[in-house]
Amino acid sequence: MHLPLENIKVLDLTRVLAGPYCTMVLADLGAEVVKVEMPGKGDDSRAFGPYVGEESAYFMSINRNKKSITLNLKTEEGKNLLKELVKKFDILVENYRPGTMEKLGLGYDVLKEINPNLIYAASSGFGHYGPYSKRPAYDGVVQAMGGIMSITGQKGGEPTRVGPSVGDIFAGMFTAVGILSSINKRNLTGEGMKVDVSMLDCQVAILENAVARYFATGASPAPAGNKHASITPFEPFDTSDGKIMIAVGNDNLWARFCKLIEREDLTSDEKFKTNPLRNEHYDILRPMVAEKIAGKTTEEWYTMLTEGGVPCGPINDIGMVVKDEHVNARNMIQMVEHPVAGELHMPGIPIKISDCSDAIRFAAPVLGQHSVEVLGQYLGYGHEDVEKLKEGGII
Amino acid sequence: MHLPLENIKVLDLTRVLAGPYCTMVLADLGAEVVKVEMPGKGDDSRAFGPYVGEESAYFMSINRNKKSITLNLKTEEGKNLLKELVKKFDILVENYRPGTMEKLGLGYDVLKEINPNLIYAASSGFGHYGPYSKRPAYDGVVQAMGGIMSITGQKGGEPTRVGPSVGDIFAGMFTAVGILSSINKRNLTGEGMKVDVSMLDCQVAILENAVARYFATGASPAPAGNKHASITPFEPFDTSDGKIMIAVGNDNLWARFCKLIEREDLTSDEKFKTNPLRNEHYDILRPMVAEKIAGKTTEEWYTMLTEGGVPCGPINDIGMVVKDEHVNARNMIQMVEHPVAGELHMPGIPIKISDCSDAIRFAAPVLGQHSVEVLGQYLGYGHEDVEKLKEGGII
Repeated sequence: MHLPLENIKVLDLTRVLAGPYCTMVLADLGAEVVKVEMPGKGDDSRAFGPYVGEESAYFMSINRNKKSITLNLKTEEGKNLLKELVKKFDILVENYRPGTMEKLGLGYDVLKEINPNLIYAASSGFGHYGPYSKRPAYDGVVQAMGGIMSITGQKGGEPTRVGPSVGDIFAGMFTAVGILSSINKRNLTGEGMKVDVSMLDCQVAILENAVARYFATGASPAPAGNKHASITPFEPFDTSDGKIMIAVGNDNLWARFCKLIEREDLTSDEKFKTNPLRNEHYDILRPMVAEKIAGKTTEEWYTMLTEGGVPCGPINDIGMVVKDEHVNARNMIQMVEHPVAGELHMPGIPIKISDCSDAIRFAAPVLGQHSVEVLGQYLGYGHEDVEKLKEGGII
Repeated sequence: MHLPLENIKVLDLTRVLAGPYCTMVLADLGAEVVKVEMPGKGDDSRAFGPYVGEESAYFMSINRNKKSITLNLKTEEGKNLLKELVKKFDILVENYRPGTMEKLGLGYDVLKEINPNLIYAASSGFGHYGPYSKRPAYDGVVQAMGGIMSITGQKGGEPTRVGPSVGDIFAGMFTAVGILSSINKRNLTGEGMKVDVSMLDCQVAILENAVARYFATGASPAPAGNKHASITPFEPFDTSDGKIMIAVGNDNLWARFCKLIEREDLTSDEKFKTNPLRNEHYDILRPMVAEKIAGKTTEEWYTMLTEGGVPCGPINDIGMVVKDEHVNARNMIQMVEHPVAGELHMPGIPIKISDCSDAIRFAAPVLGQHSVEVLGQYLGYGHEDVEKLKEGGII
């Protein structure tokens, strides 16, 4: 029952979302992640709502499975403590604006002298080189500049920001992939390296067929609404009490679907025989399907079409998602007991590995909760030493 | 200049997007990825537009850096060849509907007997257990059921599908993370394992603060449009010739911003002193800002605000993204020479690792391009043996 990353030690200087999402992914798979926070304040997102009591539910959901120590990196003694810790860790992750670590005297060039095995990973808005490198970024800015907004939205409507902060989250995921690949390489070469991930680069990397389409046609795709670009019927329909997404992906499904909506006559209609023909005659096909779907509830269609093998699903709101029986059967909403905030629910771990638990091991830390433990374990500090550091404002 | 995964061999049975995205990420970092395709037909996405000549630009952008062999897994000889290859590879990835590999007699239980070191990774719509496990899924269905559509869209508007297929892409990313973590674990234990990733689970894992908000308040968040939920001003504004995303993330930026839009008077206005106050008075603040922004072009504001240190950016369409100087300085649009389709442009590799090239090494394969090479290298087959397999319809 070893967790896959239980031999990996991560010094985590990240804040808010992109970096913390990366280290959450590593922590969820068993890595020892020690979050290094500014004394008295900590990760900015500790101040982000919504709150449960005094604690940020947002912070707690992204920082489970991590430990927290405080360390004032603006003091000489704080910097030295970090350098001592760097000797004992495999990985350092940070998501400061490029140049910040160098200004602190803690850039990769300095740290690799101290620990040549160190994997140093940096996630930033625009990356550590290139003309925009030093600029600040927010998720909204990166979604705008990276093109995803320009292809998200209702047909003919405004470019639309994606609800979750995918500018941050994709950067966190690619940083995790970069770190894990580097662990493999380090096993071959014995040497550390620097991993540089830019939020904007990651947005470009997920544009998928939009880039291929642009280069093939010379035209930039626009928001396409909820309909599939080249399959019909493949979009949401209004039911008598809501909506349902229906995905008739091929001719075989089309035959089944016509039977289930009691319009078997459409199967033999030459206008709708193949998917290209259904696309061509979308304007006459859609109203006929819509009329049928409007006649029953979402639940009725969901049951009937699913039993008939036609891919479909309700457009769930968050309350429906967290109560869904399948989501719960896969442990994707977990309850975690927090020492201050009490019982918390949060998303589970989506990577299921044979003979490995997928349970969240422990709740997010309160600020500096593990200072004594970590400084003791890694640097041999006693309670008294730690008290002195506290009095000096170092931790 | 070793690439980080150059010692890793991946047998790739995936099709369309979620699985191929995963193996692209591994191939981009140096893994030897051998795509196993059905003779005569291959990956379904070879038939997806847009085309360049006879070749799918879509397929080619997701399958660069991979080799292709054909193998008819419905024949006994094809199955046996796969089993022989499994002995020589570290990883097998598939994204069939759960149960398909078992029906072929190639399930994890069979393959791990043949190679106990094998890391077997499966990406599917709903995962390998749970009540919906056997159902087919498409990206659109998973985006609907997983909640992301319910929190994406204009304020007061329809739930909106995200343009790129993030249902597939996140599953691909999490599968890659699961595989790379398993490589680390296998180095400790010497044993292989099965990695099970569900597209729906991955959607739940990226809902971010929406889940925290639901559990804190009991209300499901709705589409919030393009404005930040709790920061003002932080949204797109119309310029004289387009739009610009402006992100005034804190009070310091607010002071700078007021000066740059020549409304320094707002800085001292008590109604707008702090972000909570700016949020409260959004309805009177927004028109005043909007009036100013409407007076210059996007380019003018972009230059002026960026020089003034205020985070902002144009809402780029795909044509603008691929021409952006920073995107190109980071090698995020690359030209690849394809043996049939000629020069192709596609997104680059967003993980930059010191002393590692970030160049795409070679173009996507034509169907079966590497059958002779791979069967020779791994199984010692000669040209004549391969010809016989071809004649028998095995490859």
